[in-house]
Amino acid sequence: MKKVAVLGSTGSIGTQTLDVISREPESYDVVGLAAGTNVDLLLKQTAVFRPKLVSVATRELADQIRDRLPSGTRVCFGEEGLVEVAAHAGADYVVCALVGSLGLSSALAAIDAGATIGLANKETLVTAGHLVMARAAAKGAAIVPIDSEHSALFQCLNGEPRSAVKRLILTASGGSFRDKTRDELKDVTVEDALKHPNWSMGAKVTIDSATMANKGLEVMEAHWLFDVPYDRIDVMIHPESIVHSMVEFRDTSVIAQLGNPDMRVPIQYALTYPERRPSAALPLDLLAKGTLNFRPMDFGRYPCLHLAYEAGRVGGTAPTVFNAANEAAVARFLRREISFLSIEEIIEEVLNRHTPHSSPDLGTILETDLWARQQAELLRP
Amino acid sequence: MKKVAVLGSTGSIGTQTLDVISREPESYDVVGLAAGTNVDLLLKQTAVFRPKLVSVATRELADQIRDRLPSGTRVCFGEEGLVEVAAHAGADYVVCALVGSLGLSSALAAIDAGATIGLANKETLVTAGHLVMARAAAKGAAIVPIDSEHSALFQCLNGEPRSAVKRLILTASGGSFRDKTRDELKDVTVEDALKHPNWSMGAKVTIDSATMANKGLEVMEAHWLFDVPYDRIDVMIHPESIVHSMVEFRDTSVIAQLGNPDMRVPIQYALTYPERRPSAALPLDLLAKGTLNFRPMDFGRYPCLHLAYEAGRVGGTAPTVFNAANEAAVARFLRREISFLSIEEIIEEVLNRHTPHSSPDLGTILETDLWARQQAELLRP
Repeated sequence: MKKVAVLGSTGSIGTQTLDVISREPESYDVVGLAAGTNVDLLLKQTAVFRPKLVSVATRELADQIRDRLPSGTRVCFGEEGLVEVAAHAGADYVVCALVGSLGLSSALAAIDAGATIGLANKETLVTAGHLVMARAAAKGAAIVPIDSEHSALFQCLNGEPRSAVKRLILTASGGSFRDKTRDELKDVTVEDALKHPNWSMGAKVTIDSATMANKGLEVMEAHWLFDVPYDRIDVMIHPESIVHSMVEFRDTSVIAQLGNPDMRVPIQYALTYPERRPSAALPLDLLAKGTLNFRPMDFGRYPCLHLAYEAGRVGGTAPTVFNAANEAAVARFLRREISFLSIEEIIEEVLNRHTPHSSPDLGTILETDLWARQQAELLRP
Repeated sequence: MKKVAVLGSTGSIGTQTLDVISREPESYDVVGLAAGTNVDLLLKQTAVFRPKLVSVATRELADQIRDRLPSGTRVCFGEEGLVEVAAHAGADYVVCALVGSLGLSSALAAIDAGATIGLANKETLVTAGHLVMARAAAKGAAIVPIDSEHSALFQCLNGEPRSAVKRLILTASGGSFRDKTRDELKDVTVEDALKHPNWSMGAKVTIDSATMANKGLEVMEAHWLFDVPYDRIDVMIHPESIVHSMVEFRDTSVIAQLGNPDMRVPIQYALTYPERRPSAALPLDLLAKGTLNFRPMDFGRYPCLHLAYEAGRVGGTAPTVFNAANEAAVARFLRREISFLSIEEIIEEVLNRHTPHSSPDLGTILETDLWARQQAELLRP
């Protein structure tokens, strides 16, 4: 029985993780849940799974729910609360499903505690890949990706010698605006941007799909997870989101992972790996689909992806700046302060203003993150 | 250094095997070559690879070439010659690339000699899968498939627990006549049938692709190789021949192997497994291709495939009858004695006349094979 803690339990990945777990309750013991401000859902989850420890965003929220928790469930809060759930709930498996750079210190704490990491928070590797992978290697902690693309790559690499890998090919649906010209993007609204053609996801990730910043973060994550240089990581537009990603080997063979766009599949695979268990997801009906299309990535159409590759190649604190500037800019777009195309302008300008540090420590990363956010908040688009 | 014997060295798979080997001569020592009647090519191959032992179809051919062989190369002939090359040339790896049921006794001899088998001869498993797999298991001999579809399945299953397999999906190009109606098939010629849209192969296999008998043999081969029942082996039309086959797992994930149609890739993989080495094949340009199509198999359009599933499910000697009747009927078509559609009629009629034996021994299989051929030769279409 796996002792599982879920960081970000009320988010899109968190709720689906608990859905997967609830289908095989005999295989899992949920020992910790960390949420932000959605205390109603957290209370419901706590009533069902009876974790030892839960965490919420603030002391006020913790005080507010303390009396409504089952006996045997303790509540903590804030950044320290996240670390507490990650490291001190007795979990041997920690699902890191927080959104944004918030997830870094708790992921490191889980690694230090010797847990296996189910990683859905891409910023952990984007901002601190060099620290996280080194720490995981030192502790012998396995990091199993949950993101559908990285799960696909992980599955395609299964049983294969790494020396045989020629390139990783991430697929991208193209997001909600893939059929719009650059000119048509000028006036798109938040509502337009939130309509993803294939995947049902949180708001931040959906906007990131429309700008392709999400794919940029995925490229950086793949770089760290699979130890493959940027010039051997490619991105292809695949509108159907059926081929989740591919690996090309040096004998020219390409191995691909396919399936319906249903996050429960990669979530479950991360939980059960190396086993595969029956899933509640619908089987892929390739004949109903009939046709799979592949188109080249247009970096001019999606400058955020180009910026991500550049930041990744520069390394050091550059990816942190890319990620933090993007997070702040997307938040401003969602608050309707800036236009959709201003997101990329802000990221580029903040990257231009930054002088990267190589091999930054955690303090430098967090400082840089804060600096980049402030810059992105203040910039006049 | 692998000591390799190639049975069927002058055929399509045999010559490509030697092509692959000649690209990394330091990795291989070719110790035996077995051909049929193409002695000119065999002599050329012998001059290059200097095997200890070669074999030809008849005593006459052996006498004819004996003086033209390099010193240190001995010649044998006939069925016994094949067995001799398979078992007594000192090979630790035997490529079984004979066409038709001719390959059975030499494949068994290679297994008994403890060699790893690179299997391109599907009839070996079709007619005697129960004997071959049991013998290989008893001897601990690995059987690595060379056929592109089975190599694809083998690669997709790499590192995966077999219990997790839900179904195997073989792809089929549809062959040279895939765009013709049943009615238009009445008058097709041998020349028409030999124009395969994607693969360059021998005449027998090309005709078998057009009738889909080839896919039927592949379904039976997959049944034995991967120990999967017939109701969990599906066939899909995939006109581009880029996805060579797929495995659906019970968590709904589908793993596929893709590549250009170039037999040197599966041949090389079989030789180097579990390693992957650089290949002379062109890398897959999925973006140039752009679109992959998948269509349901039409069993009414391809009755040979339906007959193959039926024969496979009946088991025992039924697959031997299917295979032998098909071989004889295809030979008659190539001799222009019968029409294209008579191939399926002959197979069906010979299967109807046969009373299957279950778990036949080698003698019974060979007897049944002979009987079915005779029936197929004599039938008036």
